[in-house]
Amino acid sequence: MQTFSSNYLKEFSTQVFLHFGVSKKDAEQAADVLSLSDLRGIDSHGVARLHTYFDMLTLGKINAKPNIKIIRDKKSVCTVDGDNGLGLVVGPKANEIAMEKAAQHGSGWVSVCNTNHYGIASYYSFKALERDMIGWSMTNTTKLVAPLWGAERMLGTNPISIAFPGLKNLPIVIDLATSAAAYGKIEIAKRKGAPVPKGWIINDKGEMTTDPSDMINGGALLPLGSDRELGGHKGYALSAMVDILTSVLSGANWGPFAPPFALRQEIPSRSVGKGIGHFFGAMEIDGFMDVTEFKKRIDEWIEVFRNTKPASGTNGVLIPGDPEHQEEAIRRKEGIPLLPAVVNDLLDISKQTGIPFEV
Amino acid sequence: MQTFSSNYLKEFSTQVFLHFGVSKKDAEQAADVLSLSDLRGIDSHGVARLHTYFDMLTLGKINAKPNIKIIRDKKSVCTVDGDNGLGLVVGPKANEIAMEKAAQHGSGWVSVCNTNHYGIASYYSFKALERDMIGWSMTNTTKLVAPLWGAERMLGTNPISIAFPGLKNLPIVIDLATSAAAYGKIEIAKRKGAPVPKGWIINDKGEMTTDPSDMINGGALLPLGSDRELGGHKGYALSAMVDILTSVLSGANWGPFAPPFALRQEIPSRSVGKGIGHFFGAMEIDGFMDVTEFKKRIDEWIEVFRNTKPASGTNGVLIPGDPEHQEEAIRRKEGIPLLPAVVNDLLDISKQTGIPFEV
Repeated sequence: MQTFSSNYLKEFSTQVFLHFGVSKKDAEQAADVLSLSDLRGIDSHGVARLHTYFDMLTLGKINAKPNIKIIRDKKSVCTVDGDNGLGLVVGPKANEIAMEKAAQHGSGWVSVCNTNHYGIASYYSFKALERDMIGWSMTNTTKLVAPLWGAERMLGTNPISIAFPGLKNLPIVIDLATSAAAYGKIEIAKRKGAPVPKGWIINDKGEMTTDPSDMINGGALLPLGSDRELGGHKGYALSAMVDILTSVLSGANWGPFAPPFALRQEIPSRSVGKGIGHFFGAMEIDGFMDVTEFKKRIDEWIEVFRNTKPASGTNGVLIPGDPEHQEEAIRRKEGIPLLPAVVNDLLDISKQTGIPFEV
Repeated sequence: MQTFSSNYLKEFSTQVFLHFGVSKKDAEQAADVLSLSDLRGIDSHGVARLHTYFDMLTLGKINAKPNIKIIRDKKSVCTVDGDNGLGLVVGPKANEIAMEKAAQHGSGWVSVCNTNHYGIASYYSFKALERDMIGWSMTNTTKLVAPLWGAERMLGTNPISIAFPGLKNLPIVIDLATSAAAYGKIEIAKRKGAPVPKGWIINDKGEMTTDPSDMINGGALLPLGSDRELGGHKGYALSAMVDILTSVLSGANWGPFAPPFALRQEIPSRSVGKGIGHFFGAMEIDGFMDVTEFKKRIDEWIEVFRNTKPASGTNGVLIPGDPEHQEEAIRRKEGIPLLPAVVNDLLDISKQTGIPFEV
């Protein structure tokens, strides 16, 4: 692992986006989303993905200069067309619209079509915290997950994020994929030749398996809850909710028709809309309760839950967002550790664009 | 099992509420919530609970004539104080406020304090469908669930409901508790002397167990996802989200302080607010997309998902709400089957109030 300063990586990402004619403001915005992901320790969504954005921009599959616009609107709600821009640009812009609506109407809700991969879901709920709002964020993604009792990939890992501010405590930050496990974990197990836990994946007949190759070769991830007994119908329903709010409601491609994020992924059998979809919400806390009172109540919630009697053999209950808060504190001081494969990807971008990247 | 017509049970429930001085409109409303639950086959939330409401009203623990009011308001959002009324009355009223706000502002979001058990969460999302809105409904409930890595009950089974209308197809109705399994299933297993699946419950040390007595005697339910490996932190986070939106945000009792629904349940160690909490949302579909176009898209979503390649050994993928739609079609024709214990409860109410109930 080699470590880089967060600012250095952010500046490099910005230059890469600028290289494709992305505006300065948008390039900085896109780099900021990747940067927060790296700072929070969500390595899969940071500069590790820059090469994929680079590929898509190189091939003209993503519009570097989108004309993002509201295509339907009613006071606190609207639909935004992202004009096939970077999700890292369309997402923040649509989220901004949700927050402006919230400032004006008490809440704002934006369904987005014609967009692309938007980074970590919690980037957007963090933004709402800066304005004393409760922010919601969801996106659909390329199919990987089977609905309960299905034997094929029909839904993405469709994350949900929402965040709540404390007064003295760091915020409660919920950011969860609606699958039982992340696809990255299946890939890691395969590279190691190790089995995965029962409940993560099925093979192409829809049977549970612990062999990661079975999933990769035509199988699927299972939804949160895994099987019927443990509530797999609930994870499937939550993933369906995300799919519908982000993509049926906005006019994007839903379910198995969501276009792939990366070049090597399978192209859907047909198109039922434009791009993928996001959904953002913002609610003014002040519309419900005095903001300071709410934050004090959140502080107390955090303290009470942290003091839950611990399960034997564990260090006790965490607050959602705790692991990432801890990682962020370390990485802001010590920098971002990158795997050799990621460093090589960045060097390759550097070579192809002439943008310097020093290791 | 003895079968009763839905209307007969509804009329009986109405009379019981009237007996306590509940207004005619409110009594009919409360009975309507119970009735839908019985029709949908969610037996645990229908007339099977009438005796509990009866107990609480008898002891004056629930206000039969609440003055339900908005205590804070900003256009599309507000907080409602239910004045310790029946949740079956406060819930519909607050949901109505959310829908009125949606008609005016595009969406409406209502956090509710000082309320009580509100029946099935999907009653409220169904109401929004009647107005071409997408309805959300959540409530906190008496503690039963341990947060991941905790060894005590800290959260309720905190359900989330949302529904989406089809044009030709019946709506997609999502209604899920954020626990891995329902408490009722643990009680049934205990009565049978049977073990429960691993992943449903823990004992009072926070260790997984399959003995239902371990849960009932000081253990807890596990959140959806069960353990860390299968995503128990996600179910915990979703339950926390519901707890905060319903009860931290409204000024109700959150987490372990939610007052019990029934008399025999444990009284919380202290009070941090008023009653339990609900959260309702309504969004005008027309603010996002032409309503008919949206419904057609939902129809297509339903048809595509129903045609998912089935997992071997199953009948294939269901659409959320399917089992309840099927049950409702049967019960509207054939009536509501009640267990002898439930019939006895209703006979007891009849005896105590003089309201006739014929078996």
